[in-house]
Amino acid sequence: MIVTVKNQCSKREFDKLISWIKSLGLDTHVSAGANATVIGLIGDTSRVDIELLHSLEIVEAVTRIQEPFKNANRKFHPEDSIIDVKGVKFGGTHFPIIAGPCSVESEKQVIEIAKAVKEAGATMLRGGAFKPRTSPYAFQGMGVDGIKILQKAREEVGLPIVTEIMSEKYIDAFEDVDMVQIGARNMQNFDLLKAVGRLNKPVLLKRGLANTIQEWLMSAEYIMSEGNNNIVLCERGIRTFEPYTRNTLDLSAIPILKEKTHLPVIVDPSHASGLSRLVKPMSLASVGAGADGLIIEVHNNPAKALCDGAQSLRPEQFADVVKAIDVMLPLVNKER
Amino acid sequence: MIVTVKNQCSKREFDKLISWIKSLGLDTHVSAGANATVIGLIGDTSRVDIELLHSLEIVEAVTRIQEPFKNANRKFHPEDSIIDVKGVKFGGTHFPIIAGPCSVESEKQVIEIAKAVKEAGATMLRGGAFKPRTSPYAFQGMGVDGIKILQKAREEVGLPIVTEIMSEKYIDAFEDVDMVQIGARNMQNFDLLKAVGRLNKPVLLKRGLANTIQEWLMSAEYIMSEGNNNIVLCERGIRTFEPYTRNTLDLSAIPILKEKTHLPVIVDPSHASGLSRLVKPMSLASVGAGADGLIIEVHNNPAKALCDGAQSLRPEQFADVVKAIDVMLPLVNKER
Amino acid sequence: MIVTVKNQCSKREFDKLISWIKSLGLDTHVSAGANATVIGLIGDTSRVDIELLHSLEIVEAVTRIQEPFKNANRKFHPEDSIIDVKGVKFGGTHFPIIAGPCSVESEKQVIEIAKAVKEAGATMLRGGAFKPRTSPYAFQGMGVDGIKILQKAREEVGLPIVTEIMSEKYIDAFEDVDMVQIGARNMQNFDLLKAVGRLNKPVLLKRGLANTIQEWLMSAEYIMSEGNNNIVLCERGIRTFEPYTRNTLDLSAIPILKEKTHLPVIVDPSHASGLSRLVKPMSLASVGAGADGLIIEVHNNPAKALCDGAQSLRPEQFADVVKAIDVMLPLVNKER
Amino acid sequence: MIVTVKNQCSKREFDKLISWIKSLGLDTHVSAGANATVIGLIGDTSRVDIELLHSLEIVEAVTRIQEPFKNANRKFHPEDSIIDVKGVKFGGTHFPIIAGPCSVESEKQVIEIAKAVKEAGATMLRGGAFKPRTSPYAFQGMGVDGIKILQKAREEVGLPIVTEIMSEKYIDAFEDVDMVQIGARNMQNFDLLKAVGRLNKPVLLKRGLANTIQEWLMSAEYIMSEGNNNIVLCERGIRTFEPYTRNTLDLSAIPILKEKTHLPVIVDPSHASGLSRLVKPMSLASVGAGADGLIIEVHNNPAKALCDGAQSLRPEQFADVVKAIDVMLPLVNKER
Repeated sequence: MIVTVKNQCSKREFDKLISWIKSLGLDTHVSAGANATVIGLIGDTSRVDIELLHSLEIVEAVTRIQEPFKNANRKFHPEDSIIDVKGVKFGGTHFPIIAGPCSVESEKQVIEIAKAVKEAGATMLRGGAFKPRTSPYAFQGMGVDGIKILQKAREEVGLPIVTEIMSEKYIDAFEDVDMVQIGARNMQNFDLLKAVGRLNKPVLLKRGLANTIQEWLMSAEYIMSEGNNNIVLCERGIRTFEPYTRNTLDLSAIPILKEKTHLPVIVDPSHASGLSRLVKPMSLASVGAGADGLIIEVHNNPAKALCDGAQSLRPEQFADVVKAIDVMLPLVNKER
Repeated sequence: MIVTVKNQCSKREFDKLISWIKSLGLDTHVSAGANATVIGLIGDTSRVDIELLHSLEIVEAVTRIQEPFKNANRKFHPEDSIIDVKGVKFGGTHFPIIAGPCSVESEKQVIEIAKAVKEAGATMLRGGAFKPRTSPYAFQGMGVDGIKILQKAREEVGLPIVTEIMSEKYIDAFEDVDMVQIGARNMQNFDLLKAVGRLNKPVLLKRGLANTIQEWLMSAEYIMSEGNNNIVLCERGIRTFEPYTRNTLDLSAIPILKEKTHLPVIVDPSHASGLSRLVKPMSLASVGAGADGLIIEVHNNPAKALCDGAQSLRPEQFADVVKAIDVMLPLVNKER
Repeated sequence: MIVTVKNQCSKREFDKLISWIKSLGLDTHVSAGANATVIGLIGDTSRVDIELLHSLEIVEAVTRIQEPFKNANRKFHPEDSIIDVKGVKFGGTHFPIIAGPCSVESEKQVIEIAKAVKEAGATMLRGGAFKPRTSPYAFQGMGVDGIKILQKAREEVGLPIVTEIMSEKYIDAFEDVDMVQIGARNMQNFDLLKAVGRLNKPVLLKRGLANTIQEWLMSAEYIMSEGNNNIVLCERGIRTFEPYTRNTLDLSAIPILKEKTHLPVIVDPSHASGLSRLVKPMSLASVGAGADGLIIEVHNNPAKALCDGAQSLRPEQFADVVKAIDVMLPLVNKER
Repeated sequence: MIVTVKNQCSKREFDKLISWIKSLGLDTHVSAGANATVIGLIGDTSRVDIELLHSLEIVEAVTRIQEPFKNANRKFHPEDSIIDVKGVKFGGTHFPIIAGPCSVESEKQVIEIAKAVKEAGATMLRGGAFKPRTSPYAFQGMGVDGIKILQKAREEVGLPIVTEIMSEKYIDAFEDVDMVQIGARNMQNFDLLKAVGRLNKPVLLKRGLANTIQEWLMSAEYIMSEGNNNIVLCERGIRTFEPYTRNTLDLSAIPILKEKTHLPVIVDPSHASGLSRLVKPMSLASVGAGADGLIIEVHNNPAKALCDGAQSLRPEQFADVVKAIDVMLPLVNKER
């Protein structure tokens, strides 16, 4: 870490800063210039509060040289991590496709969709049992009963399941879930991150709506710091000023993540735009950007054919997307 | 709610939409035009999934006429709510100032600061016992012990206390806390919102970094829907592209909130900019914008005089800010 | 256009609003509800000031049914526009690739790059003669002399040329340029838009850093309203909070534009990220998203091999990108 | 400037970087560490292309120590600049209030408003002759005739005038305008900046919708680099995700600017929110934040009383705002 100090800074202030840095167990290397003095911090700087330093009146700038994430850092783990979810592999040349309904509504619904998406090529089943909703008056999901339905569908159809956890207090209900999802709104719910870090189970960590890539990797780091390294990241759109789409899918995050971390990263093209007709082009775009997989909403409720234009695809539309992906995968050295 | 339907929509699709709307217990009023057909939804539309409607292929636009929040809505509660925290009142002509250290570090530290800020005019004491930190390697707060220290300081100095809750599992430890804070990162931690909604205790609800004013009021609605109407909102800056400040304080949110809701709203000028030298101008700006109070970080640790330029003020600087505020309050029909 | 009026509005105010709407040559259709009254505006609403309406105290909401752009609107022109730049076609099944140096520096440099990119498969040559730079102290481009160099390269190598215009006063110098580029910072320089609208020449219209898709189409509308319909749009990244990339490439804008307009849209993957190593994945992602072409920076100055990691590719890297694109095009029904 | 180089960088690449830096006329100071090597650049770094450096593969980070703006920099000009517009002073303890209609529509209208705002305390007259409009179908302003009307009003009422220039080609028409405004959309129209830089006339430079404070000061630098130092900055709201207001007024920019530059900065509270009922609270907030003045829209067209709720105040509302400001000014050491 490099701290640039203003030249008008008094010797007393400067010495206080140096001794504070040393009190953190770090060494310093000072080089004085005409306009500013530069302090190099030598040692493990991951515990240094960069915002505190930055806000000091005598400090002009602070530059991190080491990234603040360690376990998630590709520098210290150059090979791709391969995350195994009951035989479904994420990372490397693998390209799993997770599919299923937005919300779990009934056993019949989930099993029908599960069969349809499996036939179309999906390798894992998703479905919301606990639903984060902006309004307290909206349907909050079936909860624990929803998880049981997903487990039945898994038995029947043979796809591993992933579903979202919203609170630590339900963690026991996730014991027999194959992959636990942390939703965008909980990406910085640090107690929940620590709790899933203590599980011996893969975690699907969605990016927060307004979180930087570095903050996202720091949230992965929370999980890893508790001993769980089985993390798959999921880009799902960030908040911008553009109103035609619900969120802006940040696909350049994919090649950036490939440099910064060894963890796999998949894309959710359904939630980002909020428009099912964008799922196909954005799925192909995700493959092109180098994603390690996709998670796609599929519904099959004829009573809700109303939703044809909504963010969920019908099974036949999903099959069409999978076919296009399969043609494209060899171009990016991936296979299914 | 007004739904505008494209004219190329088939009669079958249109009828399906109408019967779906009716299945929600709503009436409809249809008016066909040359370019589009407009459906007025009559009844309680707060349960309607606006995103679902918006994403339908046959739908051109959806306009809410009723705001989705009810309990928090000024329309149904025209008078300012006055929230009473052990005699400290928020709302109406009141203007409380909450002050205290960023983190609780020791009994001595907290009691000293509490005495200093009380003398300078603070009416409540703040201090972080549980600390949300981007990095798992940063100090996470003293936890339950920190709350005990705040309680001791309250006994000694006589100021009610407010501190942040980060997880439902610690809720018992907050039984003897006077006001519970929900931090920015937990603004949409819906299980936590419901949990504090079941408490009989005032809640300080901070705005999320990338949350709209409407989402913020919907989070207040979560708390109120469980029976707790004692909510004070707190603007603390939103995420933008500007790098000179940590966040951008959105002061126009204040007069907007005054129209939309009867709940009081205070401002945190310390966290938004991350720079203590901005606390005074942004405090006066908050008063001008019509805020109902302030929450300000103050430190007094001489060993950390290092932090002079950081986001915390020293007690004497805080006293200077309070003095300036006191001169200004009569202009905005507030008093302390 | 639908205007929702608050119920507390007085009859006098309501009547004034109605007669103002009628003074614009529009008819109205009023339907009164329990909570609000809805006014439908019938006729050509493209001249209505939506912001004015929205800001009226008695107005709750305004919804446009007709998009404010007409000439650019796919509704009134369902077929893809094919823009022909000296035989290079944009739109439909075509997929041109424009390549060349960031700045024109010398005849030798431009001709060498032009030859190299033509051999690698580029169909048009780009190069900055006038350079928009944040700093007045940075190199501002060779100006008119730069255009002459591009014209020589065209003669020598046989690729049509595109280069950016920054001010109306240089418009004569662009007479023999094949396609005129409007840069991101000038997307709402309305006098410049009108000026190129009076040219009989294709225009490459880049998206502004913080402009919505609708504003972008309104800028195309400015050009078209002067009689020039030969417009190619270019997505080049929008401004967000993410610091790892210079801008965030908004690829979901591509399928949205395909719905809203008949104009072709290409992508600039070099400028968005600012990192040459992201050009290949983001080029493939653009193809997947349905783009109609690409514009890519290529340099060949061995003295600047320093720039290897910058936003420009070397010719051999560019050739590799073109090869990958060519394999992918049939999947999206495009050909070169 | 500090350049941090990755340790895996080869000696050849490193040496090339060093000699490139030296070719710019700069000295270097290298200090090698365990994880990275740091190069200090010594000399005038304002010409160094920071984005180029940042994008090099061997570079980990680049930190500017010197700000890239010089003439606008408070470091080299510690005293407040006082800008004099025909006797109306901006900067220091002064607090001018500019008022007038959004658009110039007729001589009668402008003279009536001019009289009313002068009586209410305005010290300068504003009015749009050339209007930047998103739509080519919206009223584009009266142009040169509008300027003549403003000049007549000045004669009649005695207030200096400010109006927006949108294109260099009209510069002659501004010869007898007292202050030339550069609008938000033209903040980075560099040719226009240079053109007004060659005028001997004060410039009101509005912040672009999505421009950082540093980019804004670099645009001031463009004007100053041509010899015109008479610049007043104007904050008018930035683009964010919040839909309740048209833009988000960034008041923390005010104290930041007070540190970074000696140029005065005023606030436009009318355009930021787009709501006239926010003008009063945001005006008081601006005073609190330390602004050097205000520019406020006022209308008096009874035929448009329709606009009562729009962004313009009526003269009596404006008088009320001025009265409140006058009470507040002594608190911030300002006077009128």
